[in-house]
Amino acid sequence: MIARHRNMPFGQRMDNYIQRVEKKLAEILAHENSAPALLQEAMSYAVFGAGKRIRPLLSYASGELLGLKGTAIDAIAASIELVHAYSLVHDDLPAMDNDDLRRGRAATHREFDEAVAILAGDALQTLAFYCLTSDPELCKQTQTQTKIIHWLARAAGPSGMVGGQALDISVEGKQINETLLKDIHKRKTGELIRAAIMMPTELTKLNAQEKHSLDKFAQNIGLAFQIRDDLLEVEEDTATLGKSAESDKKQLKATYPSTLGIEEARQRLNEVYSLALDALQIFGDSSESLIELSEFIISRKK
Amino acid sequence: MIARHRNMPFGQRMDNYIQRVEKKLAEILAHENSAPALLQEAMSYAVFGAGKRIRPLLSYASGELLGLKGTAIDAIAASIELVHAYSLVHDDLPAMDNDDLRRGRAATHREFDEAVAILAGDALQTLAFYCLTSDPELCKQTQTQTKIIHWLARAAGPSGMVGGQALDISVEGKQINETLLKDIHKRKTGELIRAAIMMPTELTKLNAQEKHSLDKFAQNIGLAFQIRDDLLEVEEDTATLGKSAESDKKQLKATYPSTLGIEEARQRLNEVYSLALDALQIFGDSSESLIELSEFIISRKK
Repeated sequence: MIARHRNMPFGQRMDNYIQRVEKKLAEILAHENSAPALLQEAMSYAVFGAGKRIRPLLSYASGELLGLKGTAIDAIAASIELVHAYSLVHDDLPAMDNDDLRRGRAATHREFDEAVAILAGDALQTLAFYCLTSDPELCKQTQTQTKIIHWLARAAGPSGMVGGQALDISVEGKQINETLLKDIHKRKTGELIRAAIMMPTELTKLNAQEKHSLDKFAQNIGLAFQIRDDLLEVEEDTATLGKSAESDKKQLKATYPSTLGIEEARQRLNEVYSLALDALQIFGDSSESLIELSEFIISRKK
Repeated sequence: MIARHRNMPFGQRMDNYIQRVEKKLAEILAHENSAPALLQEAMSYAVFGAGKRIRPLLSYASGELLGLKGTAIDAIAASIELVHAYSLVHDDLPAMDNDDLRRGRAATHREFDEAVAILAGDALQTLAFYCLTSDPELCKQTQTQTKIIHWLARAAGPSGMVGGQALDISVEGKQINETLLKDIHKRKTGELIRAAIMMPTELTKLNAQEKHSLDKFAQNIGLAFQIRDDLLEVEEDTATLGKSAESDKKQLKATYPSTLGIEEARQRLNEVYSLALDALQIFGDSSESLIELSEFIISRKK
């Protein structure tokens, strides 16, 4: 992380935020202590890997921009991560991407079995909503709470993440145009990242222009994240990445490099990244944390 | 249906209620019209089979007991049915029960493919929560709304339905005792049925005793439903049931007949059914619809 801000850089708070969300995740998982042991174990395995917690960090950084405390964000961050974790478990299944490795270790269906992985994924999705409905902070303001739950349901659902995944599978092995690819990426990855950033806004009173700007940032940084992910797939080798670097290519997934070529994909990443940063300008210094985290996202090596 | 009540029997309103919930389900599915066509098609296929809509009917009958209008119940009923539909899609997968038939036609993963079925199930679960957060009736009273969403998350999650499914799989082929079997059934089937009946109570002011009684009914009728299901598996042939009648037996699932024998299973059904009906006594005539529907549930032939 580059300390480019006048105040303490966000990078110095990142570990703290990661601890916060992991504490909340552990609480939610432990709260469901009457779950069968094997299911519980598989859920924990899926949630506590070597995850980068990018989405929760975006929620906390968005919270900083909005002047919110971490306690207000914990449940939001955890719910987003639970949805993300469930999606990875299901994506890796043999009938889906058939990936045996995830984050440098066996995918959940390889560590356990397919049935347990399907159920653990299902349960993690349910827990995401459970997390939001049982959080004491959010329960104090139910009107806000239901709007936040609505964000999550919209982002994770058929118009969002699951829809993107379905589109992604339907175009496997086909040459598609950039418009469709962008649509797939925006749904598959973008909508959840957008929700991570926008859900905290329900806890404040942004004016329409501010909300629009933050949303523009959110949508563009989500796309930038996925283009970076596509590029990492071709740039890095398996050891660095912790999953089979060529797995997408093997399955002929539609990616920015496969659709536009590597150089143009890199260019598109820079363009989208610029659009994201531009959108933050109206927030001035308040946006420093989000800017720093964005830089981390597009320069990450895994 | 036997017209055993002084007023118009519930049986005469059943079709109307089924139409209500199916209209709501169609609305929710259509609302997500930006979902990819194949995913949309698979979701509709899974939701609009020959489902008996028992869970929605229980919500409406519970609503009648509580003096609530159908409009207040529609979203609750639809959300429960969406969770039920998603669970069936995932249960039928090859890695789970490996059932090719469901409700007399191809299971979703056979009509489409496994990947689409996994995603359609995932999406239906998300839509259940989307349904509750977007319903205009519920949005008028957000405090109630979040409690209702909490019910659903608890019932569907690792302590409830998904947990029951995981336990069910973990004991396959093993001889288990009745206590464990009861626990599995209560989770796997009971918790969602319980939620179907109890979620409407959040819209009213029941006293503690009434709530306790209705909950006792709900828990027992849920168990009765599953014992009846177990018995149907061994009593009926494939043609009548619309799915492979011996499928559970083939996989050595733990059932009441396999654990206790058919006669004792029938006896247990009667006992549990009596407990359910007894619990309704304090409601007097208001419980007629629930009683009639309960009778239908335990005497059903499929």
